[in-house]
Amino acid sequence: MLELDYTNVLESAVHANGIPKIAFEKAAESSKHIVDDIHRAHASGKLGFGDLPTDRNALKAVIDFARSHSFPNVLLLGIGGSALGPAALDAALNHPNSGRRLIVLDNIDPDFLRDSLESISAQDTVVNVIAKSGVTAETMATFAVVRRWMIDAIGETKTRERFVVTTDPVKGDLLAIAQHETYPAFVIPPNVGGRFSVLTPVGILPAALLGFDVEGLMNGARSAADRARKPFFENPALVAAFIQFVLERERGKRILALFAYSQSLWKFAFWFKQLWAESLGKKMDRRGREVYYGQTPTAALGVTDQHSQLQLFIEGPNDKSFLFWDVKEFRNSLPIDHPFTTFDSMGYLEHKTMADLFRAEKQATEIALTEAGRPNATITVDRINAEALGELIMFSQYFTAYAGEFYDIDAFDQPGVEYGKKLTFAMMGRPGFAEYSRKIDEIRHRGRAIIR
Amino acid sequence: MLELDYTNVLESAVHANGIPKIAFEKAAESSKHIVDDIHRAHASGKLGFGDLPTDRNALKAVIDFARSHSFPNVLLLGIGGSALGPAALDAALNHPNSGRRLIVLDNIDPDFLRDSLESISAQDTVVNVIAKSGVTAETMATFAVVRRWMIDAIGETKTRERFVVTTDPVKGDLLAIAQHETYPAFVIPPNVGGRFSVLTPVGILPAALLGFDVEGLMNGARSAADRARKPFFENPALVAAFIQFVLERERGKRILALFAYSQSLWKFAFWFKQLWAESLGKKMDRRGREVYYGQTPTAALGVTDQHSQLQLFIEGPNDKSFLFWDVKEFRNSLPIDHPFTTFDSMGYLEHKTMADLFRAEKQATEIALTEAGRPNATITVDRINAEALGELIMFSQYFTAYAGEFYDIDAFDQPGVEYGKKLTFAMMGRPGFAEYSRKIDEIRHRGRAIIR
Repeated sequence: MLELDYTNVLESAVHANGIPKIAFEKAAESSKHIVDDIHRAHASGKLGFGDLPTDRNALKAVIDFARSHSFPNVLLLGIGGSALGPAALDAALNHPNSGRRLIVLDNIDPDFLRDSLESISAQDTVVNVIAKSGVTAETMATFAVVRRWMIDAIGETKTRERFVVTTDPVKGDLLAIAQHETYPAFVIPPNVGGRFSVLTPVGILPAALLGFDVEGLMNGARSAADRARKPFFENPALVAAFIQFVLERERGKRILALFAYSQSLWKFAFWFKQLWAESLGKKMDRRGREVYYGQTPTAALGVTDQHSQLQLFIEGPNDKSFLFWDVKEFRNSLPIDHPFTTFDSMGYLEHKTMADLFRAEKQATEIALTEAGRPNATITVDRINAEALGELIMFSQYFTAYAGEFYDIDAFDQPGVEYGKKLTFAMMGRPGFAEYSRKIDEIRHRGRAIIR
Repeated sequence: MLELDYTNVLESAVHANGIPKIAFEKAAESSKHIVDDIHRAHASGKLGFGDLPTDRNALKAVIDFARSHSFPNVLLLGIGGSALGPAALDAALNHPNSGRRLIVLDNIDPDFLRDSLESISAQDTVVNVIAKSGVTAETMATFAVVRRWMIDAIGETKTRERFVVTTDPVKGDLLAIAQHETYPAFVIPPNVGGRFSVLTPVGILPAALLGFDVEGLMNGARSAADRARKPFFENPALVAAFIQFVLERERGKRILALFAYSQSLWKFAFWFKQLWAESLGKKMDRRGREVYYGQTPTAALGVTDQHSQLQLFIEGPNDKSFLFWDVKEFRNSLPIDHPFTTFDSMGYLEHKTMADLFRAEKQATEIALTEAGRPNATITVDRINAEALGELIMFSQYFTAYAGEFYDIDAFDQPGVEYGKKLTFAMMGRPGFAEYSRKIDEIRHRGRAIIR
């Protein structure tokens, strides 16, 4: 089961950069309303993410669909919350020789799209178009390109049989287009936001198509959701949220460094980055005050980034909080077997395993950060499997939601990106955005400072 | 040629978060010694990175070697400065159907190593072991595992013909092991540090083995090195360094958000992250004062991260400086061709291209950040090719070196990671590290705060 070790955020470990034990006791009392508020939002139907693991119908539907749509390539068209979750599951649960491959088209760089499509065979591919809003510009454009590519390769009739969409049950155009083209469609419950949607068909349909254990995923998620309703000291998501809130507000840890000590969790860190950044990066709090909140998440990979970011983490400004994501058991231990025992740099590795070295480096990094007064906590799962991913996902969603409650902000909207979308529409000549075109023209006529 | 557009870091664009024009005029005078200092270090032989593009011998040697070692897979064993540069070149310059593939083993997670090796055929593989120090624990351990894997697959004699090492000409064990095993060896000049070494055989040997235009790479790098010696207003690296220094020190932009608007430059951003973080993240300045300097780099990908990080960038704390990495021309434009013209969300895309949409979104993001008072600059290259990568690399290295001069720190060491390495050796039982074992024992016996 998922563990939270917060020894190294305590004052006893990192002194003035840490949190006194007594503050936790107080938080156990004062945070009760936070748990109640979130669960009231669940009960009223306003907030859906916590109830997803109990939705047996959605689970059965994707499993049935996957059984009848078995292809080597799952081509996913989606961006942000419609891509990061499935990509995280794939990175953690797929293996190179599984015979299934996820290709995620989450960018509209034309060279990336062209190269990606050239590297796969349409014949071997099922396409999942995912857009919560049903209108996302990037996804709709990519859909047009991929549909054309597939029709050119296998014809219009067969193409119709290869597309499946995941979208809102009412909003947007994607559902209507699916109906027009006779594509099957899965729905995202309206009370589940994009970045909280990985346990809807957004994530579980690709997972099922890739042959992952979606039942295990949901079981793990349900266990984490249950723990998220428990009292403070049995509730890792709540304690973790309290820790980050205090470290950011009162100890100046403006950056949350996500340190994944497992290659399998590298993309999970990117999924988490969106969850944290979009949920907590807010100009206004719920009382309408300008607060400009938001701890900046940054992703690091253990042990790899010990040779890239660690120098800054240890010696740079003490403005970071560290969150390790650790795994108890690997599938392999991998003996380090060699004849170069007389060399200093190799002798000590004899009769050891890669797992030994990896563990030692994680512990060494943790100690070095702690000794340098850098607060750090560790989330540990037993092993990388579907159940653990379910736990990690649901834990992270409650962790983020509770942090939003501590900040007293709306963790479920993203008002800051609307302006850029409107500017894009204006530049693309979409009707109804003329007022933004004037702004763009004005800026284009300003002088620029360029060194060329 | 590489351009730096710094319009949006000026006061005229972002007001109090920007830099007045007069400050640039003053910096043009006051920064002269900085350029002189770096070039004196080049001339004296202390600092080597700027002279690498003129080393015709190194270039010829790798080209000759690559000609006689043509294999579909280039398996690279290295970490940090021995992996990030080659990976960046591969991500930018390789294509899925080139027939050549780079596999980088830059982590010791045993599952990652096992899965990576299971996904390739030893028969089709040449192995490049890269370690500047010649003793790097992760790389030596990985070498042992990969050597064993290859011997098991193709036998000891053939294995000897498939390994090539890149290391220091004197230090460490890797050169001696190479001589013992009769592997060919390439050297990294001692006056070039790991994170500045991509234009040594560290980067150009894998590049040549992958069939990239290494001559073009060096030509681009030479052009950027020449510009880095010019007066302030013709020297993009110097101006860029001045900008980040002022934004970080005087405007509180503690985070440098690298926003790569090209999928091809995504791994380049990770290479840059190491360069910036390890070079500038320093506890002590040159006068021996405790300064804890270092702007934290974070990587974002356009347009993908508009749907992940942009909400925080626009509405969160104004503690970031943004650096866009842009490309003028794509290889493809990719028409958005579809019959769904009656739908609002698709009609406006007709007769447009993916390149149009991508460009519009980059400009929209730039405007939205600027209007929100967030200083941002753009580095642009004409197109993604070897020459442009050479320019970007050399520009970035001078950019970082000049920033180090503004901060008056040593940008070329990394003292902060030594303690963790010693702790690792102690845990692995390497002789000579007993004093660190005591520390570890003490910590292991402390009580821990865990929620499980």
